[in-house]
Amino acid sequence: MHRLDIKQKTDIRLVDISPDFWYPIAWSKELRRGKTIGRYFGRQSIALIRPKRGPVFALENRCAHRQVPLSKGTVEGDSVKCCYHGWAYGRTGKCLDIPYLGKDENREKIINRVRSYPCREAGGMIFVFPGDPEKADKVPFPQLAQVNNPAFKTRQFNPSVKCHYTFMHENLMDMNHQFLHRRQMGQIRARYLGGETGEDFVEARYSFARTGTQQPLAERLIFGKHTYDPNKIQPVEEVVTIRTTYPYQRLFIHDKDGDLVMELFAAYVPNSPSGKSCQTFGLLSVLRPQTPLLIDIIWPVLGIFTNRIFQEDKEVVEMEQRAWNELGGDRNREVFPIVNKLRDLLINNGITH
Amino acid sequence: MHRLDIKQKTDIRLVDISPDFWYPIAWSKELRRGKTIGRYFGRQSIALIRPKRGPVFALENRCAHRQVPLSKGTVEGDSVKCCYHGWAYGRTGKCLDIPYLGKDENREKIINRVRSYPCREAGGMIFVFPGDPEKADKVPFPQLAQVNNPAFKTRQFNPSVKCHYTFMHENLMDMNHQFLHRRQMGQIRARYLGGETGEDFVEARYSFARTGTQQPLAERLIFGKHTYDPNKIQPVEEVVTIRTTYPYQRLFIHDKDGDLVMELFAAYVPNSPSGKSCQTFGLLSVLRPQTPLLIDIIWPVLGIFTNRIFQEDKEVVEMEQRAWNELGGDRNREVFPIVNKLRDLLINNGITH
Amino acid sequence: MHRLDIKQKTDIRLVDISPDFWYPIAWSKELRRGKTIGRYFGRQSIALIRPKRGPVFALENRCAHRQVPLSKGTVEGDSVKCCYHGWAYGRTGKCLDIPYLGKDENREKIINRVRSYPCREAGGMIFVFPGDPEKADKVPFPQLAQVNNPAFKTRQFNPSVKCHYTFMHENLMDMNHQFLHRRQMGQIRARYLGGETGEDFVEARYSFARTGTQQPLAERLIFGKHTYDPNKIQPVEEVVTIRTTYPYQRLFIHDKDGDLVMELFAAYVPNSPSGKSCQTFGLLSVLRPQTPLLIDIIWPVLGIFTNRIFQEDKEVVEMEQRAWNELGGDRNREVFPIVNKLRDLLINNGITH
Repeated sequence: MHRLDIKQKTDIRLVDISPDFWYPIAWSKELRRGKTIGRYFGRQSIALIRPKRGPVFALENRCAHRQVPLSKGTVEGDSVKCCYHGWAYGRTGKCLDIPYLGKDENREKIINRVRSYPCREAGGMIFVFPGDPEKADKVPFPQLAQVNNPAFKTRQFNPSVKCHYTFMHENLMDMNHQFLHRRQMGQIRARYLGGETGEDFVEARYSFARTGTQQPLAERLIFGKHTYDPNKIQPVEEVVTIRTTYPYQRLFIHDKDGDLVMELFAAYVPNSPSGKSCQTFGLLSVLRPQTPLLIDIIWPVLGIFTNRIFQEDKEVVEMEQRAWNELGGDRNREVFPIVNKLRDLLINNGITH
Repeated sequence: MHRLDIKQKTDIRLVDISPDFWYPIAWSKELRRGKTIGRYFGRQSIALIRPKRGPVFALENRCAHRQVPLSKGTVEGDSVKCCYHGWAYGRTGKCLDIPYLGKDENREKIINRVRSYPCREAGGMIFVFPGDPEKADKVPFPQLAQVNNPAFKTRQFNPSVKCHYTFMHENLMDMNHQFLHRRQMGQIRARYLGGETGEDFVEARYSFARTGTQQPLAERLIFGKHTYDPNKIQPVEEVVTIRTTYPYQRLFIHDKDGDLVMELFAAYVPNSPSGKSCQTFGLLSVLRPQTPLLIDIIWPVLGIFTNRIFQEDKEVVEMEQRAWNELGGDRNREVFPIVNKLRDLLINNGITH
Repeated sequence: MHRLDIKQKTDIRLVDISPDFWYPIAWSKELRRGKTIGRYFGRQSIALIRPKRGPVFALENRCAHRQVPLSKGTVEGDSVKCCYHGWAYGRTGKCLDIPYLGKDENREKIINRVRSYPCREAGGMIFVFPGDPEKADKVPFPQLAQVNNPAFKTRQFNPSVKCHYTFMHENLMDMNHQFLHRRQMGQIRARYLGGETGEDFVEARYSFARTGTQQPLAERLIFGKHTYDPNKIQPVEEVVTIRTTYPYQRLFIHDKDGDLVMELFAAYVPNSPSGKSCQTFGLLSVLRPQTPLLIDIIWPVLGIFTNRIFQEDKEVVEMEQRAWNELGGDRNREVFPIVNKLRDLLINNGITH
């Protein structure tokens, strides 16, 4: 019996992410005062505008007149002017001016408006609420790793990946994919300790056992040197927890005393009409070691190490997307129960057409 | 109420240009004697052939045998030979020879032909009549700016633009888009003086008022230096007329005495099966100033200036096309009456499927 | 009457090649011991695995788990391990190990498998049987030119061509396309001597007459110098036979004494889901001249000569495919009877949807 014959009720790769959450769509540093930039949330084109004074705001990135991106225009005071005919829009999306219409005529014409989006800035990222704006205040804003905790140092990462966002969640949740990172991580094997699920989350816990003798440099710098007996499998005493709390994903590493030593926050934000690409917004917080300067010394190494691992993940999830494209649908045969729970979570909380 | 809910009866971006007119599809200088080149009019692939002696002729650019472009072949006398098996075609599109068939056999086989197109060369351009050939003689040939008037100097321009041809007409007709060219043109504001419409044309007239003090170099060289009082809005005394006489577009600038100082001819010729790209064939005629050499001195500056403006126009109309693609249709909310008249003209004279 | 009005019953460019034959999909030298590579046969993605010891084997190139290409994995003993989570597969396609499942659990889970393909290596090529495996033993394996005959020297060629495989068969069968190679071959004209057809083959025989005086270098080196009388058409005494024995194509050149001096084997293997591209696997066997070193001296010249001819063929068949794409179907008006027989052969033996 061939796998192609298997039918699933819902193809997870056709499930859109729910818009009724806060999503980062740009890094704060990408948008200077008095400027505007354009980003996509799925098929929605969104202009982010940062006036000279006051907070960032977000509008539909299409002039009401001829649908040209407002992000190609100019920021004047608290408004953005379309680059083409100079129509101006304020924070609420109301059209404030059509320069070439007479004052009286203009009053009548300014029934035009563009959509505005609730917008917040936090942890170095600009978030919008692309769904029903009435829900924006009630929906909890995510915890952004340890970005505000001075005991941790936090780095940003933002690979753009050509796959459906759900592949990213599955990738991290299933730590048995350490085989993929054998060159970067040495030969370690994940041991599943158990998991938990709820209405809006799935969590898996792992410990790791080293099957080789080599400890990679970055790991050694963070956790300290372990000496390994080459004749037996080496337990790594840290516990790694991965938790998808819809729609975000987190990873925690606790040391043998139960103290948090690393925390990851990641949002995988669809950024194209096809749904086949997403932008990762990630924050990786690492506990500063007791030797004061050590964290600054290991930081670049950690960056390279992390980037290499992400590169491997990016390649494999993009291969999964290509297989989906070629096969015309999802053919996954998942055997790991917690990943199946995760798939249910993503399907149940997403938008199925 | 969201703009996306608006329905239009006819989507102007789906209206094909009428083939029953003379269209330039190549510049004369692109086709040397004894050579052939291929061009597209919409989805029609057309071979232009210039024999060593005699005028250019135009054939369907697909050999009757295996549809290979005749423009890849060789010109021999008054015929073109397909590059593949050497089938030869004359001016009328009749197949004259299939080299490997016996003479008798050949006579029978030469029922094959390709379509021929009425073809004329004028103003440095090669025109074809892609519609019903019986109409070719009755349809008036366009006036090509002042290309044959020695009092004017004429330059060619031919940007290829990735948008539907209708965006190009709207772009030029609506002079309120001067905001787009604020870097090239200084801060000027168009004042609409009125317009006229008829069965086959729409015309708009504008004067311009300068709102800043800086006069761009090219403008100064052409029209002479004006001194501006920075405390008031400066009228520019020239009148600009834009007229779309289907399917061509013209722009005239008359000075304060009513004399023509500049004339533009433009044809926007669809050049791909998708209809989402066109080739501009433009002629810009500028009245030679009384100082004899001045025109030659300012010519390169004028070229740069014009190219920059076209570049800005190209970018914005391509953004409009991308918005159309992403939204799946036309969402324009046109508020300027003469542009709405123009849209009606393009729809009524074009081919709606 | 316009050619576009002609309807054909079966569009030959939509006929898939029959999978129930042996097809080369890679060159032996492309796959080193202990490695795996991936290739396409039409829409089928196939992994070829060459263990450190033993013959090559071929599996469906999609892990049963998440459809990632097995060819991105590692070869261990007689198995291939998926790069992602380390699932291992043996020669038969059976899943041998899911490393992170417990032994008992694993036994239950290993109901998973991937498809395996009959696989053979011959003539420097790796062949698979992509159709019904039960037929593999009964279907005759092709004769590979004179690759095993020491009296001949054989070179490989493998242009990848962006067209349907049927264009390739028609190209070679119709020797009247020598016009295409006039720069490489001089002015020669094919004379059709006759042909034969059967259930699974079509054959055409030609002699050649030179209409110019210039004999190309490569031809002269292979067949010896001829002196030509420029005042009359020169007969070339060799006979060229082209035979498509479904699905392969062969070309033979016999000299005036009836001895074989050159033989070509070619398979045109579809290598993309669209069916609009194929990979040529070609072997060209040339009889070694009596002067021992001569063949080694002319070999590079012959290579350049052959590559230039293939390049011309590649360009023209890709133009045919583009014409098909633009016209939305086959509009060929074939006048050469043997080519029409060939078209029938390819349609009758292929898969029509």
